[in-house]
Amino acid sequence: MRVLILGGDGYLGWATAMYFSNKGHEVAVVDNFTRRLMHLERGTDSLTPIKLLRERVEAWKEATGKTITPFIGDIRDWDFTSRVVRDFKPEAIVHYGEIPSAPYSMIDVHHAVHVHENNVNGTLNVLFAMHQFAPESHLIKLGTMGEYGTPNIDIEEGYIEIEYKGRKDTLPFPKQPGSFYHLTKVHDSNNIMFACRIWGLRATDLNQGVVYGIETDEVNLDDRLLTRFDYDESFGTALNRFVVQAVAGIPLTLFGKGQQTRGYLNIRDTLQCVELAMLHPADPGRMRVFNQFTETFSVLQLAQAVKEAAEKLGISVEIAHYENPRVEAEVHYYNPTLSHLPDLGLQPRYLQEQLVESMIQRVVQFKERIITHAIVPRIRWKEGDREDQVKITELEK
Amino acid sequence: MRVLILGGDGYLGWATAMYFSNKGHEVAVVDNFTRRLMHLERGTDSLTPIKLLRERVEAWKEATGKTITPFIGDIRDWDFTSRVVRDFKPEAIVHYGEIPSAPYSMIDVHHAVHVHENNVNGTLNVLFAMHQFAPESHLIKLGTMGEYGTPNIDIEEGYIEIEYKGRKDTLPFPKQPGSFYHLTKVHDSNNIMFACRIWGLRATDLNQGVVYGIETDEVNLDDRLLTRFDYDESFGTALNRFVVQAVAGIPLTLFGKGQQTRGYLNIRDTLQCVELAMLHPADPGRMRVFNQFTETFSVLQLAQAVKEAAEKLGISVEIAHYENPRVEAEVHYYNPTLSHLPDLGLQPRYLQEQLVESMIQRVVQFKERIITHAIVPRIRWKEGDREDQVKITELEK
Repeated sequence: MRVLILGGDGYLGWATAMYFSNKGHEVAVVDNFTRRLMHLERGTDSLTPIKLLRERVEAWKEATGKTITPFIGDIRDWDFTSRVVRDFKPEAIVHYGEIPSAPYSMIDVHHAVHVHENNVNGTLNVLFAMHQFAPESHLIKLGTMGEYGTPNIDIEEGYIEIEYKGRKDTLPFPKQPGSFYHLTKVHDSNNIMFACRIWGLRATDLNQGVVYGIETDEVNLDDRLLTRFDYDESFGTALNRFVVQAVAGIPLTLFGKGQQTRGYLNIRDTLQCVELAMLHPADPGRMRVFNQFTETFSVLQLAQAVKEAAEKLGISVEIAHYENPRVEAEVHYYNPTLSHLPDLGLQPRYLQEQLVESMIQRVVQFKERIITHAIVPRIRWKEGDREDQVKITELEK
Repeated sequence: MRVLILGGDGYLGWATAMYFSNKGHEVAVVDNFTRRLMHLERGTDSLTPIKLLRERVEAWKEATGKTITPFIGDIRDWDFTSRVVRDFKPEAIVHYGEIPSAPYSMIDVHHAVHVHENNVNGTLNVLFAMHQFAPESHLIKLGTMGEYGTPNIDIEEGYIEIEYKGRKDTLPFPKQPGSFYHLTKVHDSNNIMFACRIWGLRATDLNQGVVYGIETDEVNLDDRLLTRFDYDESFGTALNRFVVQAVAGIPLTLFGKGQQTRGYLNIRDTLQCVELAMLHPADPGRMRVFNQFTETFSVLQLAQAVKEAAEKLGISVEIAHYENPRVEAEVHYYNPTLSHLPDLGLQPRYLQEQLVESMIQRVVQFKERIITHAIVPRIRWKEGDREDQVKITELEK
């Protein structure tokens, strides 16, 4: 299958590109290096020393004999996006090409607007390009479980049948996202739903949980093929950051008591889920929604799992409770449905002590590269003011 | 009260500015003349010969002795928006500063993206400016009943209590808007809801129906104070367009059988509703939503009302059924709730034969100015391709 991966230089994008290429698909990646630029801005970096995209593609060719075609450009640029879709004629478009950071979107007005422009406008270009140049292709769009927030009812997969005053309808599930970043994903979902309805496009919206893990079969072939691994306050996710904190001897940062519960999955399961979506494409005309996670944990549970695994390896770990920089319910009901992906055959890899230990060992390999200044969260939801940010950035230096 | 009106040069914006100024409020208007520019692009114009904003403000001063302060600039420009909010210190911000056209947003990718940037990013700037420089002010935001679409259950005012699998929550009402323009209003609602929640802002989201009418007390003082009156396919709304078609001797354009039902209100009631919202401000911390209309009609009912009134005045009128350029259900359930505004004291002016007759007479006054080429809809939801549009525009010339 011809697969176009948007954001193919990123954490999941590069791992997905190699995974599909290895399985014999014809893979092209699109990237404009937004993530690398943002790390320069924040003074942070991937824990893993990642190669330039050009070098990655060459190393992949050397290691496997297979070709991954890079298209360098910005999906907000219609001329670029429309040409790529017209010329490559993808059968599937896996769309990771968005800025995925809640804290980054909350820095100030400029960051909030930038995340909107990048995510929402970029996706509009992709939809129009599909409509005009690849109307049969299947959009596999990475959304987030964070679109739903934490309602006091079960979270269904994208839609809910509502019975109200004696009448019934199946309607989009009401969403209460928790940051401007999460809001852009909701805006995307609404725009994609509409584009499917009016143009008969095929799309699957993957409402993904928090991804953890550093290794895939392809990453493990050669250190030049490593995918990025972020642990900073903007781009690091809970388990990944905890492991780095444990190795760096920094207390694990919990917000409040750490009872916020979310869905999680292994990076290998992300690849499996995206593949299942691709091999079973959505019908034209109605956006399909899959919740994509394998387990739910409270942040405290994850911290404890890291502490236990680290201590087995002789690393002592502290857990610190910080004032929550976000505005969110600490104690809440959380019961998301997970049935579409298991129905398609998802075989979850649950979080086990060995996995955490192996993550810790991989992180130890790159211990010298850990940058500590931006692990503890400083971006506060209630502020939203550039002045403070500039000051903080100066202080860090 | 100090009232800042965004989009104060527009149809409702200018009428609202005069209305509040007349009542003794301190009024400033913000505009960047987007609407006037778009008419230049589409080769259309207001039926009423409207004056430059500077002339309007002078004529208002002459007619009433009162001052309306104009700020000329783009709310997408943070430097401009933040200075206006900081310096004027509004107690209420009435936000009409958006591109309000479904067809315009559906022309092609560039128009879809432009409407997103203008509406969503402009509103983000307003929210951040309020948060930083006027945290006590009350945002009165014009949304649209079109955000809801036509669900098969009653449409509540912004939120709905859902009972599901034995649990309950009050959640944002699920929305299914019918154009990229309507989607931007949904994105705005979601962003405002979030800003209220995290920053404790006050906001009222007015989900307004289709506005009709050409006259208000202030407009009638002097022809230099006329507000704009659009009837073209992009900016004209159903009743206004029908009246112009009747006077111009063009058949009234119904899409399909014309059974699409929507909420409507008189421009004078828009002023009344915005005033009621302003005089009873929202509490901080949760976006309040009012449905804002006075009656529901099918498009066919409106066409028949115009036909009858016109024929009494000796004007013969045909009704023509066109293929629907939109993608929407022609026959549907429609039962929106209307209780918050009546609870605050709304006294509706229902649509009566005399009103339609008086609109027809006003339109006759400007009959020579009617531009006929862009009344019949040509922008088709299913196309979304610039090529066709450019060709159509050329043909029109």
